[in-house]
Amino acid sequence: MQIYHANIIHTPERQRFEVIPHGYVAVSDGRVEGVYRELPAHLADCPVTDWGDRLLIPAMNDMHVHAPQYRNQGIAMDEELLPWLQNYTFPEELKYADTAYAARMYRHFVHDLWRHGTMRAVAFASVHFESTRILMRLLDDAGMGGRVGKVNMNRNCPEGLQESVEEARAACDALVQEFEREDSRVRPIVTPRFIPSCTPDLLAACGEMARRYHLPVQSHLSENHDEIALVRALEPESRHYADAYDRYGLLGPSTVMAHCVWTDGDEFEMLRQRGVMVAHCPTSNFNVASGLAPVRRFLDAGIPVGLGSDVSAGHDFSIFRMMVYAIQVSKMHYERDHSCAFLTLSEAFWMATKCAGAFFGRVGSFEPGYDFDALVIDDSPLVIDDSYTLLQRLERFVYIGDDRHIAARYCQGRLIPDPLSIP
Amino acid sequence: MQIYHANIIHTPERQRFEVIPHGYVAVSDGRVEGVYRELPAHLADCPVTDWGDRLLIPAMNDMHVHAPQYRNQGIAMDEELLPWLQNYTFPEELKYADTAYAARMYRHFVHDLWRHGTMRAVAFASVHFESTRILMRLLDDAGMGGRVGKVNMNRNCPEGLQESVEEARAACDALVQEFEREDSRVRPIVTPRFIPSCTPDLLAACGEMARRYHLPVQSHLSENHDEIALVRALEPESRHYADAYDRYGLLGPSTVMAHCVWTDGDEFEMLRQRGVMVAHCPTSNFNVASGLAPVRRFLDAGIPVGLGSDVSAGHDFSIFRMMVYAIQVSKMHYERDHSCAFLTLSEAFWMATKCAGAFFGRVGSFEPGYDFDALVIDDSPLVIDDSYTLLQRLERFVYIGDDRHIAARYCQGRLIPDPLSIP
Repeated sequence: MQIYHANIIHTPERQRFEVIPHGYVAVSDGRVEGVYRELPAHLADCPVTDWGDRLLIPAMNDMHVHAPQYRNQGIAMDEELLPWLQNYTFPEELKYADTAYAARMYRHFVHDLWRHGTMRAVAFASVHFESTRILMRLLDDAGMGGRVGKVNMNRNCPEGLQESVEEARAACDALVQEFEREDSRVRPIVTPRFIPSCTPDLLAACGEMARRYHLPVQSHLSENHDEIALVRALEPESRHYADAYDRYGLLGPSTVMAHCVWTDGDEFEMLRQRGVMVAHCPTSNFNVASGLAPVRRFLDAGIPVGLGSDVSAGHDFSIFRMMVYAIQVSKMHYERDHSCAFLTLSEAFWMATKCAGAFFGRVGSFEPGYDFDALVIDDSPLVIDDSYTLLQRLERFVYIGDDRHIAARYCQGRLIPDPLSIP
Repeated sequence: MQIYHANIIHTPERQRFEVIPHGYVAVSDGRVEGVYRELPAHLADCPVTDWGDRLLIPAMNDMHVHAPQYRNQGIAMDEELLPWLQNYTFPEELKYADTAYAARMYRHFVHDLWRHGTMRAVAFASVHFESTRILMRLLDDAGMGGRVGKVNMNRNCPEGLQESVEEARAACDALVQEFEREDSRVRPIVTPRFIPSCTPDLLAACGEMARRYHLPVQSHLSENHDEIALVRALEPESRHYADAYDRYGLLGPSTVMAHCVWTDGDEFEMLRQRGVMVAHCPTSNFNVASGLAPVRRFLDAGIPVGLGSDVSAGHDFSIFRMMVYAIQVSKMHYERDHSCAFLTLSEAFWMATKCAGAFFGRVGSFEPGYDFDALVIDDSPLVIDDSYTLLQRLERFVYIGDDRHIAARYCQGRLIPDPLSIP
């Protein structure tokens, strides 16, 4: 048993923070045993890591990020989705046929997740099997967790990014063989890129792989008007974009769909009924001019929403910055319709931690039985005045802090060193 | 004469960057003499500061920031404008009656401007004369420039923030006496807080002070629906919000008006005719749920637009981050109306540098005769791949860089040290 002593803040419920000033978290076998205001007698002899006046919060989960777009982070912001894919993204992803290039870039990618306090990610790799293995091994070696998808795609993209259905199946079999164990932190996820990139037989194979191996699924949904029109043209028999996935068995409670900016009506209802999680990616939705996703409506309907950096359509790895942006997006909905209350900080924090964390098991909270995924925040440079409350200190860190203020990172109870320090 | 050698990037024109790889800037008496691809023979013997492969760009100008809201940066994000003022902002500004508190906070404020590469600011102080002097002296001691306004206000706020018209006049006289010289970097600006805070006789006095001393003017305009409705109720004879300033002689080519989110029709035309500059504050407009300002329309009409952090309704001092947000806001207009092209990076950069800089003289460009206000950007940690162009390196710095990448700051040719290092 290990005890951590600090100012503890987390969101067991969406609507409010639980704040335990100078409290204690007891951790055993990587899992939280309990959170205490005073250390109980039976734990009095356990070793204590004393983080003093620092904040101890759950670690971040990035529910949508494209690892092979790492080089393009912060550039190529002058196009909408479809031309952006053709002109900037596919040319970069082609490079990942080269495993040496992949290894070099993915090392930096994993470091940047770590640096920003993201201990779990749902990531797209590229179509390339070997490079995907490299990314999964790097994440696992780092002690971090997540679901990594070898991308499935076979149309409307350069030939070098296309695979056959047989290749898709073989790669999935091999990745499951190597990584899909109950106790693995890094595991595969079925990843049809999006409807425009996948023929019906590839989509059918994806659904079949998900069923056979009980794998989760990730993809993109209703991000952009031109994209939605293209899906309508490609899949005229589908009632809407979500239905084009659903008819291949790709929507369920272990599916995460990125964006859903324009999801409404029957598509909205389908997500709700299937239990699909939405990955809200607000910077991406701004940068490629997609629009303002209706997060309040999702939450009110009981549709779970996590936050995604969507690097490189999104430019920022920080899930804290995504909280800020998510609140800002919700304020633009509120500005137009005051019945649509904007997101509170606790709601944004909950989305990024406990709500998203459910995708990985019991992750994102300090309730008993949860994995101890945590960040120690040393916000002392931001405490310019002694009158801030603990919640104001957290709010300031979320709004104006950065990686410099993250003093330590834990994943499943292990202190995680800088992945670049691993030989 | 001093020569600076680096990769030079600036925006003499709005529509495009001028890029001079490994070029030279010659500076004399704090002013740019010229920019050269090869060092001319007559400058061959001048001392050279060699910044190697770093980027050399104009320094940032913050066209709207509230110095006495410094403590509240990154907190209090749960209200719209008017309750936000009453509940969070006025209580904080009241503290600036205490000059010791003001001196302590303003030192940090000036440091944070410096840290983020902002060498000139148009700032609101509070209503307090002595604290305003302290801020102006701190900025001047730091070697930085700007216009600082002792705020004028006498209604709809706590008694401790109200002044008489006589006090307003006396304070203005004294600040002009102390600071208003042709060669001062830090000078006063007439600052009626906004129409709801000022009675007609105070507004008239403001107009009269501006005329008498040829002072510029700053205020707020058409930020929020409730605010606009309040102005309509308070000033029923005015045709619109802008007219409520104009009738007191407060709109002209040396006026900067923050926000203008809802400016259109006759108000829009009035800003154009008077030559008023708009301070676009995109993070603030998100955080207090104001809306998406129509910057493309301003620029198309020839209305100059600078960028403002608006701390603390805005949470971020970085004018680079304001460029990103300004482009993002414009993409939300574009998403709804494709005839409204979104801002390019060169346009956002030009707004923050040359366009805004005109408010201070010849500032914000490296053209001959301009003050040498410059930043040296050491983006080497961001250059993870040797295939980036210089413009891509700049774009990455703007999107994902921060103060760690600013290696040096110049204002009027002087290297500016950390203001906190000044005793």
